[in-house]
Amino acid sequence: MADILHRVGIKSSPDEVFKALTTREGLAAWWTSNTQGDGKVGGALEFRFSAAGSEIGGFDMKVLELQPAKLVLWQVVDGPQEWIGTKIRFDLKQSGDHTIVLFKHQGWREAVEFMYHCSTKWAIYLMSLKALVETRKGSPNPNDIHISGDGPD
Amino acid sequence: MADILHRVGIKSSPDEVFKALTTREGLAAWWTSNTQGDGKVGGALEFRFSAAGSEIGGFDMKVLELQPAKLVLWQVVDGPQEWIGTKIRFDLKQSGDHTIVLFKHQGWREAVEFMYHCSTKWAIYLMSLKALVETRKGSPNPNDIHISGDGPD
Repeated sequence: MADILHRVGIKSSPDEVFKALTTREGLAAWWTSNTQGDGKVGGALEFRFSAAGSEIGGFDMKVLELQPAKLVLWQVVDGPQEWIGTKIRFDLKQSGDHTIVLFKHQGWREAVEFMYHCSTKWAIYLMSLKALVETRKGSPNPNDIHISGDGPD
Repeated sequence: MADILHRVGIKSSPDEVFKALTTREGLAAWWTSNTQGDGKVGGALEFRFSAAGSEIGGFDMKVLELQPAKLVLWQVVDGPQEWIGTKIRFDLKQSGDHTIVLFKHQGWREAVEFMYHCSTKWAIYLMSLKALVETRKGSPNPNDIHISGDGPD
């Protein structure tokens, strides 16, 4: 088992960051514009991505656990084979005037090349989350920053 | 043991990317301006970082192995306790008109919070490497993109 880990600090309150992680509007403004569903516990979230105007796939998540201003935990129930069954968690804590986000995408069965890609891409999207909360402007798909120039970009 | 993984694609030849990973001038233009030493096998590289005009630490690496246009492998011999003994490798391969960089910072003893930070920061610096090779302009420390607003940023 292998995990993707990240840490960003966002100049805002844990409440604001939590909102961006648990509402359709928030998620659509930093991860992917095509976000549907319900961010509440037991709800299902559907994230779809596109490139050059065509849908290229996505992820369905079940919301396993929420602790207001502290924790968001999802499980992947549909998407690329490598993602199914993995969990994605965001732990939030205050540090001075920043909220620290500790991110973990846990339970990859193998460190395949797609995991390398997803690790970098998660960093880019977490910087989009940071920008959204700090400046009101994120870079969700399809306006995300590209990292590879081939395949899922 | 835990590893940090990343993948970026750079619109350039493996030779050009290899040069940016093995010369003092190249390394200083994407990772940290204060790079000293020798990127050849058996050589030692000293990377120092600064913030607000003061040096805040750095890493000494031994160059363990090089395969032109294919592999760069370093071992950390001095720096933060968590880094000492870990290895950093860059595997390069061509994919169309891009060079794919598979990055691994391997051998972390524990997934401490500093590892979360370093994972995100490596992504930022690999995007700086990509920008350097593609556009001639990287963002090395002290002009790096900040991710946290506290501690090592």
